[in-house]
Amino acid sequence: MSGTFFQPVDAAEVPRFAGHSTFMRLPAVQTAAGLDVALVGIPWDGGTTNRAGARHGPREVRNQSSLMRRVHHVSGTEPFSIANVADVGDLSVNPIDLIDGLARIEAGMDEIVAAGAIPLSVGGDHLTTLPVLRAVARHRPVGLIHFDAHSDTNDRYFGDNSYTHGTPFRRAIEEGLLDPKRIVQIGIRGSIYDPGEHDWAKQQGVRIIYMEEFVSRGAEDVMGEARRIAGDLPTYVTFDIDSIDPSMAPGTGTPEAGGFTPARPNR
Amino acid sequence: MSGTFFQPVDAAEVPRFAGHSTFMRLPAVQTAAGLDVALVGIPWDGGTTNRAGARHGPREVRNQSSLMRRVHHVSGTEPFSIANVADVGDLSVNPIDLIDGLARIEAGMDEIVAAGAIPLSVGGDHLTTLPVLRAVARHRPVGLIHFDAHSDTNDRYFGDNSYTHGTPFRRAIEEGLLDPKRIVQIGIRGSIYDPGEHDWAKQQGVRIIYMEEFVSRGAEDVMGEARRIAGDLPTYVTFDIDSIDPSMAPGTGTPEAGGFTPARPNR
Amino acid sequence: MSGTFFQPVDAAEVPRFAGHSTFMRLPAVQTAAGLDVALVGIPWDGGTTNRAGARHGPREVRNQSSLMRRVHHVSGTEPFSIANVADVGDLSVNPIDLIDGLARIEAGMDEIVAAGAIPLSVGGDHLTTLPVLRAVARHRPVGLIHFDAHSDTNDRYFGDNSYTHGTPFRRAIEEGLLDPKRIVQIGIRGSIYDPGEHDWAKQQGVRIIYMEEFVSRGAEDVMGEARRIAGDLPTYVTFDIDSIDPSMAPGTGTPEAGGFTPARPNR
Amino acid sequence: MSGTFFQPVDAAEVPRFAGHSTFMRLPAVQTAAGLDVALVGIPWDGGTTNRAGARHGPREVRNQSSLMRRVHHVSGTEPFSIANVADVGDLSVNPIDLIDGLARIEAGMDEIVAAGAIPLSVGGDHLTTLPVLRAVARHRPVGLIHFDAHSDTNDRYFGDNSYTHGTPFRRAIEEGLLDPKRIVQIGIRGSIYDPGEHDWAKQQGVRIIYMEEFVSRGAEDVMGEARRIAGDLPTYVTFDIDSIDPSMAPGTGTPEAGGFTPARPNR
Amino acid sequence: MSGTFFQPVDAAEVPRFAGHSTFMRLPAVQTAAGLDVALVGIPWDGGTTNRAGARHGPREVRNQSSLMRRVHHVSGTEPFSIANVADVGDLSVNPIDLIDGLARIEAGMDEIVAAGAIPLSVGGDHLTTLPVLRAVARHRPVGLIHFDAHSDTNDRYFGDNSYTHGTPFRRAIEEGLLDPKRIVQIGIRGSIYDPGEHDWAKQQGVRIIYMEEFVSRGAEDVMGEARRIAGDLPTYVTFDIDSIDPSMAPGTGTPEAGGFTPARPNR
Amino acid sequence: MSGTFFQPVDAAEVPRFAGHSTFMRLPAVQTAAGLDVALVGIPWDGGTTNRAGARHGPREVRNQSSLMRRVHHVSGTEPFSIANVADVGDLSVNPIDLIDGLARIEAGMDEIVAAGAIPLSVGGDHLTTLPVLRAVARHRPVGLIHFDAHSDTNDRYFGDNSYTHGTPFRRAIEEGLLDPKRIVQIGIRGSIYDPGEHDWAKQQGVRIIYMEEFVSRGAEDVMGEARRIAGDLPTYVTFDIDSIDPSMAPGTGTPEAGGFTPARPNR
Repeated sequence: MSGTFFQPVDAAEVPRFAGHSTFMRLPAVQTAAGLDVALVGIPWDGGTTNRAGARHGPREVRNQSSLMRRVHHVSGTEPFSIANVADVGDLSVNPIDLIDGLARIEAGMDEIVAAGAIPLSVGGDHLTTLPVLRAVARHRPVGLIHFDAHSDTNDRYFGDNSYTHGTPFRRAIEEGLLDPKRIVQIGIRGSIYDPGEHDWAKQQGVRIIYMEEFVSRGAEDVMGEARRIAGDLPTYVTFDIDSIDPSMAPGTGTPEAGGFTPARPNR
Repeated sequence: MSGTFFQPVDAAEVPRFAGHSTFMRLPAVQTAAGLDVALVGIPWDGGTTNRAGARHGPREVRNQSSLMRRVHHVSGTEPFSIANVADVGDLSVNPIDLIDGLARIEAGMDEIVAAGAIPLSVGGDHLTTLPVLRAVARHRPVGLIHFDAHSDTNDRYFGDNSYTHGTPFRRAIEEGLLDPKRIVQIGIRGSIYDPGEHDWAKQQGVRIIYMEEFVSRGAEDVMGEARRIAGDLPTYVTFDIDSIDPSMAPGTGTPEAGGFTPARPNR
Repeated sequence: MSGTFFQPVDAAEVPRFAGHSTFMRLPAVQTAAGLDVALVGIPWDGGTTNRAGARHGPREVRNQSSLMRRVHHVSGTEPFSIANVADVGDLSVNPIDLIDGLARIEAGMDEIVAAGAIPLSVGGDHLTTLPVLRAVARHRPVGLIHFDAHSDTNDRYFGDNSYTHGTPFRRAIEEGLLDPKRIVQIGIRGSIYDPGEHDWAKQQGVRIIYMEEFVSRGAEDVMGEARRIAGDLPTYVTFDIDSIDPSMAPGTGTPEAGGFTPARPNR
Repeated sequence: MSGTFFQPVDAAEVPRFAGHSTFMRLPAVQTAAGLDVALVGIPWDGGTTNRAGARHGPREVRNQSSLMRRVHHVSGTEPFSIANVADVGDLSVNPIDLIDGLARIEAGMDEIVAAGAIPLSVGGDHLTTLPVLRAVARHRPVGLIHFDAHSDTNDRYFGDNSYTHGTPFRRAIEEGLLDPKRIVQIGIRGSIYDPGEHDWAKQQGVRIIYMEEFVSRGAEDVMGEARRIAGDLPTYVTFDIDSIDPSMAPGTGTPEAGGFTPARPNR
Repeated sequence: MSGTFFQPVDAAEVPRFAGHSTFMRLPAVQTAAGLDVALVGIPWDGGTTNRAGARHGPREVRNQSSLMRRVHHVSGTEPFSIANVADVGDLSVNPIDLIDGLARIEAGMDEIVAAGAIPLSVGGDHLTTLPVLRAVARHRPVGLIHFDAHSDTNDRYFGDNSYTHGTPFRRAIEEGLLDPKRIVQIGIRGSIYDPGEHDWAKQQGVRIIYMEEFVSRGAEDVMGEARRIAGDLPTYVTFDIDSIDPSMAPGTGTPEAGGFTPARPNR
Repeated sequence: MSGTFFQPVDAAEVPRFAGHSTFMRLPAVQTAAGLDVALVGIPWDGGTTNRAGARHGPREVRNQSSLMRRVHHVSGTEPFSIANVADVGDLSVNPIDLIDGLARIEAGMDEIVAAGAIPLSVGGDHLTTLPVLRAVARHRPVGLIHFDAHSDTNDRYFGDNSYTHGTPFRRAIEEGLLDPKRIVQIGIRGSIYDPGEHDWAKQQGVRIIYMEEFVSRGAEDVMGEARRIAGDLPTYVTFDIDSIDPSMAPGTGTPEAGGFTPARPNR
C-alpha cells in the first residue's frame, strides 16, 4: 500500500527553493487523520530564560528540510514508504501567556493523538515537551531517550516559577507522564549552579550519561545501554538542538561548548 | 459579497511566526479560479548576470509579508474586501535552462490568466517579466509603469545572448507585448556603459524619468505624468527591488546608490 | 556646582572599547540617591507577540552609547553639567512570568522615584512602560509624547490577554496614569487589522499624528503642536525604536516601512 | 633552478590585506606559458539547481588564500620551489547561457593545457569540471580521485536537462574522458531520491566510499585504496567544498550534515 | 587621443564577479607613469582609536567598484575618455609602527606625484591623508574640501600622541600643507568632548559647515560656498565614509547618526 | 572561609542578559587587593599584522561568560569556593602607540601583582603577553604552557619591528622572563614562510608539539609531557583563540585550518 503514501517533492523536478515550504517537502494537510506520523510545529518559546527565538524554529526547520531526500544512501531505508507522513502545520500557541500556551499545545497535540497519528514535533523551547507528554502519555507513563546539554530537571526559577525550559522533565515525572527508571539523558554537559543539581533526577532513577562518559565509551555502547533502559515499552525521544556543538548550531538559546560533532575516523 | 472573500490570518490570534508562511498571510489555494487577484511566486533568476539569489525571493517575501495587516491606517482602504485574493503558490521553473525556464513561466502564467485572475507575481529576476507579459499581453499590447534603477532595454550580452535581466522590455516591445508610447520608467539611475545605451528605448517612445528628474520634480508631479502616459488602457506595473536605495534592500543583485528612500518632511 | 557631577569617560583617554560598558560611559552606581537622572535598563520583552530580543536591549545600548560625547556641537549644551546622571544598572525582571515581570519592574522603578531621581529607562519592549508609569504617575496622571510606528492602544490579544506590547497605553489610560487629552502620538504608520482600531484612543482624546501628516507638515510644526498638547504639566516621553525606519534599526520586533530618517536638505 | 620560480608575497613584508589579491599571493600573469602549475578561477555556477553563489568562489578564495605561506611546517615541503606556479586569472564565462558557458571554459582550459601547464582550478560549481576534463583528457581518459558529499553521476534534471552540477561525472564517463575503473569517490553521504541512484556509476566500475565507510576504516586505509584505484596513470583530483562539514563551509549550495572535520586525537 | 586611454572591463562581456578585482575594473599597472589619474589603495588604519578595519578598505572598495560603469547616465560624461586612469595597486604600509607607516605612505605617494599623475587614494583611516598631503603639497599649501562627520583637527590623544585619525588636518595646517583659509568642512556633526573643540580650527580660518547648516541651506548653496572658499588654486578633496549615514555605511569605525542620505524630492 | 568569597550571579535569579556584564558574572571591583585571582581585560591589539579586532575581546568575552555557572558537573569542583575571584576591569591601553601601549599594560599588571593576586587576563592580541610577563616574571623566569596555532617566536617584521603578535615569546626569552627549557607549545600548525622559522625556538630548548603530533599521540599523553616540562615551578599558561578550529572561532585575526575541536568518541 506504500504507493498511496505521501511522497516528498523531488528536487530534480521542483527546485528546493520553490513552492510553499513544508517539513521534508511533504504535503501540508489539514488533519492528522489517516497519517501514521504527523509532522507538526510548535512555535513557542515562552519558557526560555536566556535568548529567545526558538519560536521561529518551525518555520526555519521547514525551510532547511527542503534539503532532505527520500532514501538513505547506505541502508536503502525509505521512511515515506513505511509510514504515511505529512505536515499538519503549527499548533496554536500564545506567546505572552505561559499557562495558556501550555494548554493550547496540549489541546492541539490531543487532536493528533486522537486521530491515531504519532506526532513528530519541532519546537520551540524544551518546555513544549511537557504539554506534548501530557497528550501522548495521558494514560500511562512512557520512557524517554533524551539528547541534550542540560538535564532540564530543575525545580524553581525566579523565586517560584515551576515552568521553564529547565524544568519540563521534573514536572513530567511528578505528573506521572514519564517512568523515571526508563529515562536516559545523553550528552549532558556544562557547568551547574549547585553541586546537587542533578541529585533529584538521579534519585528518581534517571540515568544521566554526561558527555564525558559518552566520549569515553562511544556511541555504540551508550546507545546499547539507552535501548536497554527504554526497553520495549512506549518511549518518547527528544532532541535538544543544544546537544549539538554550538559551532554547528550557534542560534541556540543556551549554548554549551563541547557538544556532539560529526563522526570521524580514528586515524 | 466581501464577506466571502479570503481574509489574512490575524496576528492577534495567530502570531506572525506561526503557520505555513504565505503571501500576506492569505490562504494557499490550488488554483486561481474564483480569484480576482492571484498572488504567485516565480523563483527564478536565470537571467541574472551579476549576483544571483532572486530565486529565493518568493519564499522570503512570503516570510516578510507576515508583517502585513488588513486595512490602510489613513485611507481606511480594505483591499481584501474589494477583491478576492489568495496565494496560488510558485510557478514551475527550471534553474539551469533559460529557454525552458521562460516557457514554464509563460505556461504557468497562462493558466492564471485563463482562470480570469489578475496575477501579482513576486520574482525572481526581471527577466521573469517577459514570459509574464507573453501571457497577459497575448492579445494586445499593454502599457507599463516601471520603477527601477535600470531601463532593462539593452540588446545583447556576452556576445549574442538576447535574454537577460537587462533586456526584457526591449524584447517585449519587439514582440508587440508593450506599447512603447505607453511606457514610463521611473527612478532610472546609475552609470551606463555606452552614451547611447538608452537611445533605442527613447526612439520607440519610452519615457525615461531619471532619478535626478524625479528628485527635482517630486513624486506627485511625476506620478501624474505616469498616469497620463499609461492612460486608461490595460497597464502592467512592475517594481524592481533595486529601485529602492541599497541601504534598504542590500540583497539585490546589481545595487545602485541613490535609490528611493522613505518620504520625509521638508523641514 | 557642576564640577561635582558625574562626567563620562573621555575617549581620548580611555578608548571606547575599553572598560565596563555603561550608559553614556557614566559611572555605574548602586543607588539613584543623589542623582538628578537615573539611567536604568529594563531587559524584558515578556509582552512581545512577534520577534523577541528586546530583552538584550540594555546591554547593547550600553555598548553603543560608548560612542556618545559630552557636549552638543552646535548648541554647546552640556547635559552632564546641568544634571547629575549615572547608570543605576538593570531592574529585576522575570522573563517567563508576565505578571511577576510587571510587578518587579514597578517595584524597581518605585525605588528610583523614591530616591528623587528622574528615570530614563532603556527597554525592553513597550509593555515595560506600563509598570514604569505605575511608578512615576502613581499620584497624578501625566502627559505623553510618544514616538512610535504603532499606537499601542489595543485591547486584547490571543483571546483575553490584556497585557502585551500592543496595549500599554490603553491600560495606562484606564488606570488613570495618563491624561488622554495630553497624549500625542507621532509617526504612527503601517497597516491595521480593523478600520476602527484607533477609535478608542481618539475617543479618549489622544492625538494621533500619522507619519503621512508628519511628512506633510514637517517636524517643526508637529513638535509645536506636541508641546502645546503636553503643556507645562509633568509629561512622559517615550520613543519606540520602530519609529525609526527599519533600514536604520533592523532588529526591531515588528518593523514597519517608512519610518523616521535623518534630516536632509530640500535641494 | 628554483630560484627563478615565482614566490608568494611575504606577510612579514606586505600585510595580507594589502595588494591585489591573487591565489596564494603569487603573481598575476597573462599566460600559462612557462608555468608548471597554473592557478585559474572559473567563476561560473550555471549548473547549480539549489543555492547559487559559487560564481563568487574565485574572488573569495583568492582573498582567503592570503593566509597561506610558503613551507609546510612539519614536512618542510616548499611547493613553490618544486614547481613554477602563478595566477593566470579567471576563464571567460557566460552566466546566462549554459552551453556557451561550457564551451568558453573548455576553450580557456585548452589554452592552459596547450601552454604545457597543469591547471589547478577554483570554481564555480562542479559542472565546471566537465569542460575542464574535456580539455585535459582530450586524448585519453584519466582517473579520478573525488572528494564530495554527492556522487554527481545523475542523469537528467527538470525533465531532460543533461548538464547540471549533479551530472558532470556521468557525462565525463559517457564521453570517454574518465576511466570509470579508475574513479574513486570519497565521503559521499546524504539521502538520495531513488534507491538505485548510484547503480549506474557502480556498474561502470566507479568505487563509491560512503562517509560511513570512511569513518569506519579511517583516512589512511581509504587513501591507500584510493591510490591503488587511481594507479600510476594520469589522474584528476577534485574536491567539492560540500565534502567538508557545513559548519565549516556554510556557504555551499547543497549542504549535507556529517562532512569532513579536522583530525583530532582518539583520546 | 581618448582612444588610447584605459577603459574599464564591460560587464556585458566579463561578469562583474570575474577577473582580478581592481578599482573601477581598470587595468592594474606597475607604475603611475603615463597616467593622468592614479587609483591607489592605502590599506592602513594605524591612527584609529576606536574600531579598526579600514585597513581592509582598498580590497573591499575594489570589489564593490565592480559595479561601476563608464558613462554618467544624465550628463553623458565619460571620465575615462577625459583622463587616462588605472589602478597602481596599494602603497607599502606598516600596520604596527605608526611613524614608519606614515613614512612609507609619504614615500609611495611621492613616486606617484613624481610620475606626474594625480592620485585618487582609498584608505585606510583619515590619518593616511597627512602623508598624502606631505607628498602632494610639498611645495605650496593646497585648499581642502572635506566631507566628514568630524573635523579631525584635534591636538593630542592618550596623553601626548599627536598622530591619530582625529588630528590629520591640524598637523597639516601646522606643517603648512594646507591653507586654512581655503579649507571647508561639510557635514560635521555628532557630540564633542569640549565646548572649545573646534575653536582652534576656526581661529585658523577653517570654515566648518555643520550638518545642521547643510540641511538648512541645501546642497546647492553650500557647495557654491565651498567652491568659493577653495577658489581656483589647487585643492584637495577628501571624503570620510562616516560622512554618510551609518545605516548606509555601518562598518565605519566611529559612526555618527544623521549623516548624508540620498537625494529625495520635497513632496 | 569560602562563604566570604565572591560568587557569580545565579541565572535562575537574574537572567544572563540582565545586569552589567562582567567576567563570569562576578562583581566588578576597584582593586585586586584581597583577591586570589584577578580577572582583567587587556583591550589592545596594537601588535596585530593581519585582521584587527582583538581590542574588542574583553567586552565580548565578558558578555559570553554570562553563560558560565558555578560548579563542574562531573568533578563537582567549585572554583569560586577555592579562591576569591573578581573582575578588576580593563587595564589602561593606548591603541595608537605600541611602545606606550606595552608600558601601560606592564604598569597595570604590576599593580595586580603587587596586590598579591594572580592575574587571569583576556586580550587583546598575543603581544599583550609580553608586558604581562614583564610584570609577573620580573624576579625570576617562569615556565610556559602555550596553546596556539603559531609559535609566536619570530624575530622581525616589516623591516625592523621587533614587537608584533608574532614575536612575544622570543622577546620574553631574550629578556629572561621565560625559561625556554620549561616552555611547551601545543597545537602549532599552519604553513610557515621559512623552513628554519622554528629553529631559534627549538635551539633555546622550547618544545614544539605540532598539531600532527598532538593528534597522533592524544591529549592525555601530550598533557602529561607538558606537565613534566613545566614541572613544579611557577608556570604561565596562555591560550590563543586561534588554537581552536576557525569553524568555532571565526573572528580570530589569523585563522589556521585544523585546530582543536571538541572531544568525541572513537566509535
